[in-house]
Amino acid sequence: MSERAEEKMTKIVEPSVLAGFQEFLPGDQIVFTGMMDTIRRSFESFGFIPLDTPVLEKAEVLLAKSGGETGKQIYRFEKGDTDMAMRFDLTVPLARYVALHYGELVFPFRRYHIGKVYRGERPQKGRFREFYQCDIDIIGSETLSLINEAEIVSVINSTFEALDIGRFTIRINNRKLLGGYFASLGIDDPTGTLRIVDKLDKIGAEKVRAELAEAGLTETQADGVLKLTGLRGTTEELVSELERMTASIPEPLFALGVQELKQVCENIAFFGVPADRFAIDLKIARGLDYYTGTVYETFLNDYPELGSVCSGGRYDDLASNYTKQKLPGVGISIGLSRLFYQLNAAGIIRSDGRATPSRILFIPVGDTLEYTLGLASEARRLGVPCETYLGGGKPGKKFAYADRLGIPFAAVIGGDEMSEGCLTVKNMRTGEQKKYPSVAEFINESCEGND
Amino acid sequence: MSERAEEKMTKIVEPSVLAGFQEFLPGDQIVFTGMMDTIRRSFESFGFIPLDTPVLEKAEVLLAKSGGETGKQIYRFEKGDTDMAMRFDLTVPLARYVALHYGELVFPFRRYHIGKVYRGERPQKGRFREFYQCDIDIIGSETLSLINEAEIVSVINSTFEALDIGRFTIRINNRKLLGGYFASLGIDDPTGTLRIVDKLDKIGAEKVRAELAEAGLTETQADGVLKLTGLRGTTEELVSELERMTASIPEPLFALGVQELKQVCENIAFFGVPADRFAIDLKIARGLDYYTGTVYETFLNDYPELGSVCSGGRYDDLASNYTKQKLPGVGISIGLSRLFYQLNAAGIIRSDGRATPSRILFIPVGDTLEYTLGLASEARRLGVPCETYLGGGKPGKKFAYADRLGIPFAAVIGGDEMSEGCLTVKNMRTGEQKKYPSVAEFINESCEGND
Repeated sequence: MSERAEEKMTKIVEPSVLAGFQEFLPGDQIVFTGMMDTIRRSFESFGFIPLDTPVLEKAEVLLAKSGGETGKQIYRFEKGDTDMAMRFDLTVPLARYVALHYGELVFPFRRYHIGKVYRGERPQKGRFREFYQCDIDIIGSETLSLINEAEIVSVINSTFEALDIGRFTIRINNRKLLGGYFASLGIDDPTGTLRIVDKLDKIGAEKVRAELAEAGLTETQADGVLKLTGLRGTTEELVSELERMTASIPEPLFALGVQELKQVCENIAFFGVPADRFAIDLKIARGLDYYTGTVYETFLNDYPELGSVCSGGRYDDLASNYTKQKLPGVGISIGLSRLFYQLNAAGIIRSDGRATPSRILFIPVGDTLEYTLGLASEARRLGVPCETYLGGGKPGKKFAYADRLGIPFAAVIGGDEMSEGCLTVKNMRTGEQKKYPSVAEFINESCEGND
Repeated sequence: MSERAEEKMTKIVEPSVLAGFQEFLPGDQIVFTGMMDTIRRSFESFGFIPLDTPVLEKAEVLLAKSGGETGKQIYRFEKGDTDMAMRFDLTVPLARYVALHYGELVFPFRRYHIGKVYRGERPQKGRFREFYQCDIDIIGSETLSLINEAEIVSVINSTFEALDIGRFTIRINNRKLLGGYFASLGIDDPTGTLRIVDKLDKIGAEKVRAELAEAGLTETQADGVLKLTGLRGTTEELVSELERMTASIPEPLFALGVQELKQVCENIAFFGVPADRFAIDLKIARGLDYYTGTVYETFLNDYPELGSVCSGGRYDDLASNYTKQKLPGVGISIGLSRLFYQLNAAGIIRSDGRATPSRILFIPVGDTLEYTLGLASEARRLGVPCETYLGGGKPGKKFAYADRLGIPFAAVIGGDEMSEGCLTVKNMRTGEQKKYPSVAEFINESCEGND
């Protein structure tokens, strides 16, 4: 071996992925892709328009809100003279898109966007630096009717019904209600207070009280905050209680929030969402300070420890950093990568062993290649993904291939099948073999097609 | 207005996207997404497994081939102590993936990957810095049968048939054949020569001859190169001519290449690819030096000026930078962003005015909201994407909304419809209105469903 050849052979770089970055083996990838397709179909069934924006944006545009200051989590770099950054959510690019293309869009603008976003967080279980978000938003020009806030609940409901990952509850609150209530208590930093209240589920009332005190709230103020956020009851009971409270709370914002919450709940029922799928929860607030009305969180009833799996809310001005045009909207986001990780870890979803789209493995035996390939084409024409084993080797190796990939049927095509113009199919699960006069007859009997 | 409020108002960042980055308005986005779905369905119908790898990789891994040296086009940056880069194709990540997960994959490993890649090229018409590639590859462990090289042609054929963008020809050549032929001429830089030959279509024989001379080829050598690459004829004629030539060309590599080419062409016919869809073209070579056998280019017959719209080939060792495991493979790539741009510019594809997935706009008039929302749910249940107009305003505004989004049907639901339990639907194209007793009857008659 020449020195040069030897040198070439030793130049092997250990293959690995960046810490905090995720990729799947085929079985998991197929489940993940299936969930993404389900979400997409659900969003499209409500007329949300697909949108796709660049992963990279000008840093000054992407970071307009923070005045160009780089958050530590942002992937930001220069190339040539250009200061650029990778998107950290799909909302800022949406704001930029709507501001840029305002004149060419039809309002209300209903869009969905399923895409990767980037945050250089400290890597930890279930937190990724590259992850998928699945967002929908409805953006109005100047105004957007309150009823859209109820429709969003029906989209969450349909989407999680279609995902089929168990019972769930969409919890609803209203930021005006919270803001008005806090103002009535003389709390002058409602946003900061909301951020603390937001932790109620995670850290409990005791610690929230301590944090509220630390933030400068009096005991009376903290009592008031915990009284409201501790209210329990059915939707009707809570609406009644809140309406009663408006008598003693002079802040008009509180009354407005109560009225919005009441109307949204009534409309949700109009949209056909079952009553046990949504609930008023006065302690949810969403940390982000741009929400101005209804806020949503979605919990899996049997796995509350997963936290909210779909969150969002109403905002009054989407794109104030990019345009003077007032663009109120309402939207939600599903953090799919995290959700998938959690569902997988909790055993709620599991790969069924299927590691390929193929439903049939055609195995030519002897001089039957052309005939076999014709059968495979016919299966495809009928909408059934399939493949033909094109390598050599013993039959056992070929069946093992089907088995390891979870292909449910193997069609062994020998000279007899070819001369008779038929096919013999083995059910890989039961081991049963059966002869069929045509691919169509086999598919009608055994395959559910390309689902 | 306070000074602070004024300052806030003027802090508007002009919204824009980075030069060379592309995004679509809804109409084009829907056509683009439709093409992507068609390609995906075609790939899956052949049992290719979806794959998704991180956009960011360790720079030393991604750039292993060039010894860690940054090409000018690469988006590479450091964050903390980590030197990372954005992928510039889907092949290097595939090589890294297969090397990393070798023990957990089933071979031959058939995967597809549709994703964005990044190259900081000089921006020019139809060249983007962020663009989609749609790749399939079949990777063998140690060996991979030649017949896979024919199957790839049948996948290209099915995919471009499904895309329905006009007649196309898949041109095929073989790198062994070229390499053996060049060696017989005493050309000692076959790779460099191939790179020049690759430009034949773009710059013509005259300039290629000049470049060959510049590269140090003698006139005899250049004559020989131009003789081979100038051969024309049917598949049968060219195979016969090449077989005749083996008598006078002693290089065994040439004869081997001729045999491979012959066998691939015979097998392509087995796969049911019509004879007018593929052709031997001895002047195609593909610039990349990792191809070792069959190479493919695909041209639209009526738009040859678009160049190859789908290219690829056989390689003997996919992941030599990451593993000692020999991984021969064959694959192709469709540069979808560029293809879409070209097809759009040439008028071959065009948005049909549809700027939403919605097929029906439901318009409640009067106190019919709940009834109308029920009709929309029913349409969704039957697989027809639709939406309900939830804002106020005059009927004209609502019809204009349907019209501008290209929604084909508007269902106006008033008190009469509600009391009769029916719906009235306006065909937005013809203006015709008709009453239907149920959503199902309307859909059966008029909608093609969610296609």
